[in-house]
Amino acid sequence: MCNERTIKMDATLEFIGHINTPYNAIEECPNNIDINGPLCQLVLNEKFKNGLSGLKPAQKILILYWFENTDRNELETSTDDGSSIGTFALRSPNRPNPIVAATLPIESIENSVVSVRGLDCLNGTPLLDIKPAILLEEQ
Amino acid sequence: MCNERTIKMDATLEFIGHINTPYNAIEECPNNIDINGPLCQLVLNEKFKNGLSGLKPAQKILILYWFENTDRNELETSTDDGSSIGTFALRSPNRPNPIVAATLPIESIENSVVSVRGLDCLNGTPLLDIKPAILLEEQ
Repeated sequence: MCNERTIKMDATLEFIGHINTPYNAIEECPNNIDINGPLCQLVLNEKFKNGLSGLKPAQKILILYWFENTDRNELETSTDDGSSIGTFALRSPNRPNPIVAATLPIESIENSVVSVRGLDCLNGTPLLDIKPAILLEEQ
Repeated sequence: MCNERTIKMDATLEFIGHINTPYNAIEECPNNIDINGPLCQLVLNEKFKNGLSGLKPAQKILILYWFENTDRNELETSTDDGSSIGTFALRSPNRPNPIVAATLPIESIENSVVSVRGLDCLNGTPLLDIKPAILLEEQ
């Protein structure tokens, strides 16, 4: 079957691997990243392994990952006082492009696995990118 | 014609708007973000406008945008000394998922336009997301 919707290939994502965390249900996931939290592994697919060369333990990296099964049409959320707040003023996973960004130091690198501490996502979350972090005060 | 490649619909991006900058050619773009640089506008498409409610001037935001026409297969780059360095150890736009992340304070918000200073991208760059920044020291 042909899907009639035209898809712009440049704007599709290719998952470069997945993230191992201790959380196998949404209810178990912490609300925020915790630099002292449990070890998590960024596991790169074999074809992307060479992209890691040059990264070093203790280096701070920006990790981009993808939240699946979220509401991509949510633009406002009700608050406790009955008013509403826009999606772009929140870090909720319910947003048009559920890309999550976390900055953490590398604990260790072994072959195609980069370990960090304290990610907030489900075990098996798709990984999109790793890049050296630029802290705001360095810009 | 049917494209036989199976596309996972969840991993397609929807551009929420575009970015106005003073740069109309790659050669004009600065290498880095500059918090004191020229004014740039994040222009949201009409349907996403309500997602901005709650954002305030001076608030630091993480801006995610998309570099088009890059080499998405590049995993290593040669350095001046003849060695090579992996894509994930660099912030080059040539990477499997050319998502760019910049953290900057809001200068002003007017209707569907958020102004910031000193982005590094071409005029017309597709915008993916805006969310409140979390600085590393706050995590």
